[in-house]
Amino acid sequence: MNKYIELVDKKLNEYLKIEYPEDIFKSMKYTVTLTGKRLRPVMCLEACRIMGGDINKAIPTACAIEMLHAQSLIHDDLPCMDNDDFRRGKPSNHKVFGEAIAVLAGDALLSFAPQVIIEKSELSSDIILKVLHEFVKSAGAYQLIGGQVADILSENGRGKLNDSDEETLKYIHTNKTAVLFKLALKTGAIIAGAGVNEITEMENFGQKFGLAFQIYDDILDEISTFEELGKTIGKDKEAGKLTYVTLYGLDNARAKVKELIADCHNIIDKYNSDILKSILNKIVDKIK
Amino acid sequence: MNKYIELVDKKLNEYLKIEYPEDIFKSMKYTVTLTGKRLRPVMCLEACRIMGGDINKAIPTACAIEMLHAQSLIHDDLPCMDNDDFRRGKPSNHKVFGEAIAVLAGDALLSFAPQVIIEKSELSSDIILKVLHEFVKSAGAYQLIGGQVADILSENGRGKLNDSDEETLKYIHTNKTAVLFKLALKTGAIIAGAGVNEITEMENFGQKFGLAFQIYDDILDEISTFEELGKTIGKDKEAGKLTYVTLYGLDNARAKVKELIADCHNIIDKYNSDILKSILNKIVDKIK
Repeated sequence: MNKYIELVDKKLNEYLKIEYPEDIFKSMKYTVTLTGKRLRPVMCLEACRIMGGDINKAIPTACAIEMLHAQSLIHDDLPCMDNDDFRRGKPSNHKVFGEAIAVLAGDALLSFAPQVIIEKSELSSDIILKVLHEFVKSAGAYQLIGGQVADILSENGRGKLNDSDEETLKYIHTNKTAVLFKLALKTGAIIAGAGVNEITEMENFGQKFGLAFQIYDDILDEISTFEELGKTIGKDKEAGKLTYVTLYGLDNARAKVKELIADCHNIIDKYNSDILKSILNKIVDKIK
Repeated sequence: MNKYIELVDKKLNEYLKIEYPEDIFKSMKYTVTLTGKRLRPVMCLEACRIMGGDINKAIPTACAIEMLHAQSLIHDDLPCMDNDDFRRGKPSNHKVFGEAIAVLAGDALLSFAPQVIIEKSELSSDIILKVLHEFVKSAGAYQLIGGQVADILSENGRGKLNDSDEETLKYIHTNKTAVLFKLALKTGAIIAGAGVNEITEMENFGQKFGLAFQIYDDILDEISTFEELGKTIGKDKEAGKLTYVTLYGLDNARAKVKELIADCHNIIDKYNSDILKSILNKIVDKIK
């Protein structure tokens, strides 16, 4: 796990050179290289490995997905969105570089991430195109952005969507959170040349894990501190945001995480992956 | 020319369906489908045609470039950037949909545009990948975003870049404006299967035309009215923005446009393109 994280951090630093005009590259690099758990790229590499692939071929895609994740954090933190001043214990991007540069840094990452996949992947054109297709579908209005929009519209005072709270919450969690885990696991398997069934299994694992991870995150927002999480706490409740905890209560949320993580274990038990298993176990341990 | 514009408008409407959550798709569609001259997609189709290609194969790319252009307009108009309330005679995107949705609509277009190229182009994987590579390089921090950053930093009170005004202006015009014309003409030629020399010629044409177009735009900002342009007038001067007109004066600006347009004629005279010639002539006519 640590080997993967080091590898991803090294490559992210290598890809993101500071060029002219420096402000934009510094802003992009700032959020991308904040210390993080690198869960998505680690899962991408591990999916590639357990499907018999060469992890070196998955590194550009793994890093691109981390860049997409950073992009979504930069824009989510903007004053017109969640208006958050802290991220991973540091001032958020727009607090350091200003709103204009923060908007543009997010935009630039949305193009730089696929550029890295195209330029750095040692794969056939067909495979690169498949990976890019998954990437842009996940990043766009049908998934990641759609989830963020539904999340914003679910807040007090911003108007509601027409669906029931349960349906809206499922839509948000699937598209705002699970999407990048699914993308990471699916592209890892695609790069390894896995078959349709294996790719689908990885996608299902990503979906279940993503839902568990979001509920886990909502629980921590309720029971944790700023020091532990490195971001403002209790904001969801304050903003009247729809979360699993506000909708179903803390006990049900804990039970749901355990159920989803058990499903995840069932999917990957046959693969010999200490890394995926240890990620699953940590989630359950932390919400006790 | 009108045939091309109708075709592009029809396809843009067809690609951009309103799906759930509707706000984001409506916001994307709003700016993309505002009446415009569609110069970039028209040039993409025409470059493909004069290089002996089938324009139908260039339509997805032509539309994707128009989406990228709309994306840059949506984000440029934001309060934290140029803070412009009007675009093409209508309220700008964030005035209609709010800042959060406007930021997200721009983000979504940055992924939807390459998605359209991947899904709708009837071309080989190798050609699609070449087009995508040009697309993401142009859209990112090395070009379009870099130009926008330098533009913002050149304004009064936002701090200056280190270079001379002349160098900075050239950088901004090349990367903020010429880039999309270059991209349109170059990808049109790539899709037609043109050779390296022809592709370079199209790129040079795009560079010269782009510089001419930006200076022309700066001249209109000085001599035109809101009614004629559909956007706020005289803002560049007010913001202390670096433009060709503020740096060299109106007469020199007019002379520079004529010189660049003459260069453009020299490049494309051997190709039989009434459309490119009429675009060049209109630019010169309008600044008299």
